[in-house]
Amino acid sequence: MKNLPLDLSESLRKRYLTVRNNGLANVFKVQDEIISSIRAFLKNEGFTEILAPIIGPVTDPGIRGAKQVTIDYYGVPFKVMSSMILYKQMIITALPKVFALSPNIRLEPLETVKTRRHLTEFRQIDLEVAYATCDEVIDLGERMLCQVIADVKAKCCKELGERCKTLTVPKRPFKRYTYKEALEILENMGMKVNYGEEIPWEAEEALSKAHMEPFWITNYPATARSFYYMESEESPGVLKDFDLVYPEGFGEAISGGEREYRYERLVERMRRGGEDPSQYGWYLDMLKAGIPPSAGFGIGVERLTRFICGLENIWDAVPFPKVAGIPSP
Amino acid sequence: MKNLPLDLSESLRKRYLTVRNNGLANVFKVQDEIISSIRAFLKNEGFTEILAPIIGPVTDPGIRGAKQVTIDYYGVPFKVMSSMILYKQMIITALPKVFALSPNIRLEPLETVKTRRHLTEFRQIDLEVAYATCDEVIDLGERMLCQVIADVKAKCCKELGERCKTLTVPKRPFKRYTYKEALEILENMGMKVNYGEEIPWEAEEALSKAHMEPFWITNYPATARSFYYMESEESPGVLKDFDLVYPEGFGEAISGGEREYRYERLVERMRRGGEDPSQYGWYLDMLKAGIPPSAGFGIGVERLTRFICGLENIWDAVPFPKVAGIPSP
Repeated sequence: MKNLPLDLSESLRKRYLTVRNNGLANVFKVQDEIISSIRAFLKNEGFTEILAPIIGPVTDPGIRGAKQVTIDYYGVPFKVMSSMILYKQMIITALPKVFALSPNIRLEPLETVKTRRHLTEFRQIDLEVAYATCDEVIDLGERMLCQVIADVKAKCCKELGERCKTLTVPKRPFKRYTYKEALEILENMGMKVNYGEEIPWEAEEALSKAHMEPFWITNYPATARSFYYMESEESPGVLKDFDLVYPEGFGEAISGGEREYRYERLVERMRRGGEDPSQYGWYLDMLKAGIPPSAGFGIGVERLTRFICGLENIWDAVPFPKVAGIPSP
Repeated sequence: MKNLPLDLSESLRKRYLTVRNNGLANVFKVQDEIISSIRAFLKNEGFTEILAPIIGPVTDPGIRGAKQVTIDYYGVPFKVMSSMILYKQMIITALPKVFALSPNIRLEPLETVKTRRHLTEFRQIDLEVAYATCDEVIDLGERMLCQVIADVKAKCCKELGERCKTLTVPKRPFKRYTYKEALEILENMGMKVNYGEEIPWEAEEALSKAHMEPFWITNYPATARSFYYMESEESPGVLKDFDLVYPEGFGEAISGGEREYRYERLVERMRRGGEDPSQYGWYLDMLKAGIPPSAGFGIGVERLTRFICGLENIWDAVPFPKVAGIPSP
């Protein structure tokens, strides 16, 4: 990992000057094409685009060491969304295939500046499909990513510059490792991760650097992820979930899985994970009332832009970047 | 104004049940087509879609009695965006024609529940054009609205139901009143508004009800609006700005205008309006460094959906509605 430029903070605080430089306009044009391509792909698959929540009484607690933002909403504590996952389980009762460009705030630890791929303010294309399985949304995610890369290469080669030559449409199906297999590969690379823990950023980056095509890591242990993923019936403690990892060191692309939708099981999972069910008001009321099973994922828009444009730093993948600890516009 | 249903609060708190009922899925499908149509129109006009800010050190203060939300961002007070207007003036230095689907939070006064057209969480299509005039963006806004209505009628007549018959593409150019003329019409209708004040919601609704086509109100007095609108050189105290008002009682659609971009003039406007320039850090630094003139507007997505679908209540125009004082999902 190279040292960060000493003037990162200054450069971000003066974004009104730096935004004019260094071909950023080309990145934003590519980003527009990325989002347009995803929208066209998903609509063609029968999805409806909905308006994502911005704030609410509860949000995603599974945010790997980042802090949620709490606000005072007419005397009631509300969160700014860290992800709209819980809301996706609501809306699929009205529309079976939905997606949204969702706003997310996560106050990341200060050391995440060094990963070059964490923002405190970011957007996801968040999608959910009623009654779907992991395999179905994994297949959807592969086809979507291939379509986006093909579209961007076809329409934005000028804006991509040199990257247009090295960026290729990946071969499908992508390689799949289980979490357990990923740990074995890491151990062979000299990086020990204890079974049950989240794979740390450095290890994930090392795995990513060892690949030239995107790959999946599936079936994380329940101890490493939040309560809303479905547990395997055959292998208790193992989840029906997945991450997609970009190649070339670009790291995590997608997180998703099948959702737990059964009230009793979910409360049990919350208790096992140390969450207080009384903090999840409407969400648990909804599960008590009954919702269908579903599967879905979120793909970070800025990380996808960073990968496609081949950018070293994620703060070049968004007009108004927010990096941990730096109060920039 | 009819009485609100006694169970509004209950109905919104149990959105996970009510979202499944009453043809809301049709509204969300129309909303998807509305946003798709706007995007297609603007891209055809040469606009780039960018990612809007969610939080930042400063945001739009001109929000008519609503409160901004402040959060603690690594020890620095940040606002959740009430509108991205100040950021639009930044990004046009990199891209001359931009738009975004921008998230907005405004803690509205409790009495706004009665207007049936205020949400505390809403989205705008926010656009800005470097070096443009009011007349140019007014023309753009008219063509955009006509295109959206034509597209929705062509593609969503089934989802619109009865409304498909009464919804018509307006004739262009739309009628234009100056603020002064609007006050005269209101006086003839028995509603006195003092020159220099904002036109109250009830008066605007009455004007809206008296029209069967959308119409513009231009040239508000500087005392009624925020510091970022350009003042007329010929008529000091009068702004180069505009609102679009929907017919049939649906009220305000669009707010926009030419922007003040000159540092000295803007600081003077802030002082005159009772704003403290020291609270506007990066924004004033940016104006000191120099930006081009521009014009633009924001159009509320939920209000446009309410108008097009002919909905009585704005909380039926969004999947996860937030209404003043009600802590719903």
